[in-house]
Amino acid sequence: MPLEALRADITPAGLHYVLIHYDVPFLDESTHALSLEGFDRPLSLTLDELRSRPSVTMPATFECAGNGRALFDARPFSQPWLLEAVGTAEWSGTPLAGVLHDAGVPGGTGELLFTGVDRGVEGGEEQSYERALSLEEAMRDEVLLVYAMNGRALPPQHGGPLRLLVPGWYGMTNVKWLARITALSAPYEGYQNAVAYRLRTDPDERGEPVSRMRVRSLMAPPGIPTFPERERVVPSGQTTLEGRAWSGTAPIERVEVSVDGCERWADAALEPAPSPYAWHRWTFDWTATPGIHEVACRATDADGVTQPLEAEPNLGGYANNAVHRVRVSVTDRPRRISAS
Amino acid sequence: MPLEALRADITPAGLHYVLIHYDVPFLDESTHALSLEGFDRPLSLTLDELRSRPSVTMPATFECAGNGRALFDARPFSQPWLLEAVGTAEWSGTPLAGVLHDAGVPGGTGELLFTGVDRGVEGGEEQSYERALSLEEAMRDEVLLVYAMNGRALPPQHGGPLRLLVPGWYGMTNVKWLARITALSAPYEGYQNAVAYRLRTDPDERGEPVSRMRVRSLMAPPGIPTFPERERVVPSGQTTLEGRAWSGTAPIERVEVSVDGCERWADAALEPAPSPYAWHRWTFDWTATPGIHEVACRATDADGVTQPLEAEPNLGGYANNAVHRVRVSVTDRPRRISAS
Repeated sequence: MPLEALRADITPAGLHYVLIHYDVPFLDESTHALSLEGFDRPLSLTLDELRSRPSVTMPATFECAGNGRALFDARPFSQPWLLEAVGTAEWSGTPLAGVLHDAGVPGGTGELLFTGVDRGVEGGEEQSYERALSLEEAMRDEVLLVYAMNGRALPPQHGGPLRLLVPGWYGMTNVKWLARITALSAPYEGYQNAVAYRLRTDPDERGEPVSRMRVRSLMAPPGIPTFPERERVVPSGQTTLEGRAWSGTAPIERVEVSVDGCERWADAALEPAPSPYAWHRWTFDWTATPGIHEVACRATDADGVTQPLEAEPNLGGYANNAVHRVRVSVTDRPRRISAS
Repeated sequence: MPLEALRADITPAGLHYVLIHYDVPFLDESTHALSLEGFDRPLSLTLDELRSRPSVTMPATFECAGNGRALFDARPFSQPWLLEAVGTAEWSGTPLAGVLHDAGVPGGTGELLFTGVDRGVEGGEEQSYERALSLEEAMRDEVLLVYAMNGRALPPQHGGPLRLLVPGWYGMTNVKWLARITALSAPYEGYQNAVAYRLRTDPDERGEPVSRMRVRSLMAPPGIPTFPERERVVPSGQTTLEGRAWSGTAPIERVEVSVDGCERWADAALEPAPSPYAWHRWTFDWTATPGIHEVACRATDADGVTQPLEAEPNLGGYANNAVHRVRVSVTDRPRRISAS
């Protein structure tokens, strides 16, 4: 998502970030079905059947666990995201809990395994993309089986015709092209839970699993860009800085802005979020004076957690929620404007 | 566009490539207008007025002039595209020639200048993105003022609410967020025509302008990918290779495939294109044997021009239409398939 799209509450279609482990499958929604296996009453549900169930529409913010990876000094080997792996969509689907209730969760089930259709080779292992989630998290009211995005059928690259939505968690949780849910009585030890998406600083360490999105804010790029470097050029005078803030662990309570390289901070104006699971807009009025400046933003959530100046590195390059710093060149000589 | 989308005639919404010199402007289509300046009867046309004019819907293939740039040995400094900067959409708009007729092109007009709303700094010069096109090319029947893409309002990142479409030309010609057309009596010497988008091997050379798309074919990635390297793993046995071929200079006449590292070539089956300005699908049946193979495709157009094994480099990294080569690892031991 180009960061100028931070100006929109709901990320316009085609601008929401996409991270795809393998290839995009192009599926036929008239024949695709979701099977529930290992339940008291195994089910197979078509898209029509899912759409006829109770429907919820909810704005939710997604962020890739690897967003900011390329900004770690060590540049971990994987998708080299800068800061664009984020977006907010209006997702429509049916609550997962109701489907689980109908299927009957067997006693002793600790986790559910969500399996997508996409296949590839990762860590030397051929696999379908699949992730397990604790039954407790999966039963939360806000967890949905999603079939529409921004009022339209879920597009192929976002998991169409069916994906999981676990608001508040990093993107890898929201399994796309969802084909199967399996009730598990033993902890899942598959690749995407046990090997990938863990916070390690030593390859031999097991590491904590990546889960909910850390508190974060980003700024829409002020002024106009250079091409192709994308440095920012801002006219001197009054300008409004703006951006978004979100957290998967607690509500956002505060956003601050620094215009002097993170020396001093001042409160930004914070607007209500469109849902408990979507980002807040923030704004900050700045009188820009000619010269080079570093502007920055940081958010704090209701647990009192504030974004750090530098995030602790980890081998996977996950969860880099460091303060967003933007270097801007302020000029007091507006040049020729050729378009009105 | 992830190359698996080469399997679709029309690139699904959100998967078509996007190259944006500056930031995406988010414009209000109810107030946006196109002005025609320097004409006999200067006009200002709203979107409603443009939509009430004769309408044409046409599939057309677009490719960025920089597609393949990162595959040149010299890695020219700009957007480091591999091969994904291509797509085909169904564009709807009104023929430009009719609008020009109503405005009255003054005698002595040699070129028209198309100016977008997007602004940035490039080559040290603050500018709106704008490109000139000869009157002769601009008057062609297939040149459109486009307000819809794949049956929906043109999205912001594709130039919404209004862009130029010059089928057959590289992407830079199709000015987005179009705000003004100016009739010029002298050759235009602005940045995007005189400095950028020229084929140079010496910085002091003026160079030939980049114009129509060179003959090219690409292959949808066979088999399944590795993550994150995106190497290809293919099961042994019968497999169908497929892809697309297009040219901005003459109709496609032939596509050939090599499965032995470009030593020998055999004809692929070529399907009709959905329009004279859109790509053709091609297919090729291959019996894959275990081991490492290099498969490749090349197209030939009606002028007898065939894609080269290596394209001649140029400083901008433009128009790299070299043969598409894909290294695949064929295995005869299918591993566990966990999704049905």
